[in-house]
Amino acid sequence: MSSRLLVAAGTTRTASIDGISTAGADPSALPYTPSADADLLVYGRPVRAPAVPVSPSGCPTPAVVTRAVQELHDLQPTIVDAGLARETAAPTIDVGARPGGDIRDEDPVPDARRIYDSARDLAASLPDDHLVLAETIPGGTTTALGVLTALDVTRTVSSSLPDNPLDLKREVVDTALDTSPLDDVAFDATDRQDGIDTVRHTGDPVLATVAGLAAGALERDAGVTLAGGTQLLAAAAITRSLGHDGPLTIATTPYVADDDTASFRETAALLDLDVIVTDPCFDQTSHPGMRRYVAGEGKEGVGMGGALALAARAGIDMASVRQQVEAVYDRVIDR
Amino acid sequence: MSSRLLVAAGTTRTASIDGISTAGADPSALPYTPSADADLLVYGRPVRAPAVPVSPSGCPTPAVVTRAVQELHDLQPTIVDAGLARETAAPTIDVGARPGGDIRDEDPVPDARRIYDSARDLAASLPDDHLVLAETIPGGTTTALGVLTALDVTRTVSSSLPDNPLDLKREVVDTALDTSPLDDVAFDATDRQDGIDTVRHTGDPVLATVAGLAAGALERDAGVTLAGGTQLLAAAAITRSLGHDGPLTIATTPYVADDDTASFRETAALLDLDVIVTDPCFDQTSHPGMRRYVAGEGKEGVGMGGALALAARAGIDMASVRQQVEAVYDRVIDR
Repeated sequence: MSSRLLVAAGTTRTASIDGISTAGADPSALPYTPSADADLLVYGRPVRAPAVPVSPSGCPTPAVVTRAVQELHDLQPTIVDAGLARETAAPTIDVGARPGGDIRDEDPVPDARRIYDSARDLAASLPDDHLVLAETIPGGTTTALGVLTALDVTRTVSSSLPDNPLDLKREVVDTALDTSPLDDVAFDATDRQDGIDTVRHTGDPVLATVAGLAAGALERDAGVTLAGGTQLLAAAAITRSLGHDGPLTIATTPYVADDDTASFRETAALLDLDVIVTDPCFDQTSHPGMRRYVAGEGKEGVGMGGALALAARAGIDMASVRQQVEAVYDRVIDR
Repeated sequence: MSSRLLVAAGTTRTASIDGISTAGADPSALPYTPSADADLLVYGRPVRAPAVPVSPSGCPTPAVVTRAVQELHDLQPTIVDAGLARETAAPTIDVGARPGGDIRDEDPVPDARRIYDSARDLAASLPDDHLVLAETIPGGTTTALGVLTALDVTRTVSSSLPDNPLDLKREVVDTALDTSPLDDVAFDATDRQDGIDTVRHTGDPVLATVAGLAAGALERDAGVTLAGGTQLLAAAAITRSLGHDGPLTIATTPYVADDDTASFRETAALLDLDVIVTDPCFDQTSHPGMRRYVAGEGKEGVGMGGALALAARAGIDMASVRQQVEAVYDRVIDR
């Protein structure tokens, strides 16, 4: 059976709202994050991007973990340009996406439907039996909350910060909903809100891309694993809202699944998703980068949970994964 | 040692001149050829492109051979968008290229220098020890002749047709040179013609890309194999004209090396290129697709000669290669 890891990499201006994304980080560096993650996954180090993303406290991008699994497992990543704002040397598939706007403004993702359709057509045409779908987009949990709120699924998401700024996210989303023409319609009502409209007005281009990829794969009965946390829940909510009822699995980390602020399992159940949680046991290492995950930072992203699940299924033990994470970290992070 | 196959895929309006490219083929299909080749190399079949390119007489694109070697050798191709005119599902690296114009018109590749610089920077930054560089562009031997003529290297190139329409190509190139502001300066003169200027006025965006990739790799002492025929000679001529004197190898097929109209070995020697010729012995099969190559059609392209050289170096015998070519052909070509 052939699998392909597709990583939707994009941006939203929502990330530049003070306090939304990795607190204290240089805000001017945020637009480079998904481009740097793409470089890292494809080449094992930054090529066109200036540096591998690390938070001020030393938490490396979860792309380091995904890359480490690739190096043990020969998992080839394919990057989809879901609205990149800076250049990457990684080859990317075009779905017509541009960087997303701030969701407090009008029409932040005007091309949402075109992006969704392009991604759906792509996934429907790919030869792979199984697609593993992942994301990298700073500020993405806030836009995910926008979609989950607009679809009346849940009022909570996880965070890459140890202290989830959920009140701020809700405030941003409330402003977005006030600005938008969206109706106040429940997810499970007969006249459901159209998931693509919610992406257009309170979401981001990565959500449109991932939701479309999942829909296209389901249309041809390919397997789909959503590799990520609450952002992938939002993508699933969009796909479900459009009537795609096929089997979907979500593979995440314990840092998201056990995040008390996020209600991950409840939302996954509501969306009829099978859940896989794979613990890399970063508590069993003293490596400062991995210890930041134990402290509640980072948590998930760039396919980390899905990569860990693939490693576990391939019989790779987590001690080997941790050793390889350390090797990648030491190779690419300039402290 | 890590190798990467980089395929510069692009277009030139020069291909639409009657009689220049695969005679008798539907001219409206030509712009799809490089996109289809990219799909085939990456996914093993067309995904966004409508069909795998086949000439009216049944000669399949040489991408079928390169793909066959990939399937035996685990050679991952990376596609560079060197001016694609139709969408491909293959992930592509952006070097800022757009489709090239007809060289009989003014300024057919206005961005030649920017493309060259972007490709050079890319190759200078990639982590691979060795780059294998290839092309796919219909009409590419005519633009190659333009550059080789403007640089006073040679007045001949090969052809994907059994009967090389060399007189027509020379006529097109003479018109291009008349229209252009290029000086009539010899390649080996002290005041050499700038190779990038020749690309801009008588070349195509693929030549700018390949020449830049070769230059960037040479700058960091990476190995470079030019995988192809007379188009790769033109790329080498550009790189050499810009003062890059490092070691370059060109790997091609006997169909090009022994093409009496092309003076391949003489030109390679003039440009100080090491030559590898690998014979797939298509004369030892009765398969109609491969027999077209024995009849002088197709000859080379999309890295075919380089892929055959890699297969030979890896100890894969040519009977296995032919068997896999047949398997790919039967899988992807709808006759």
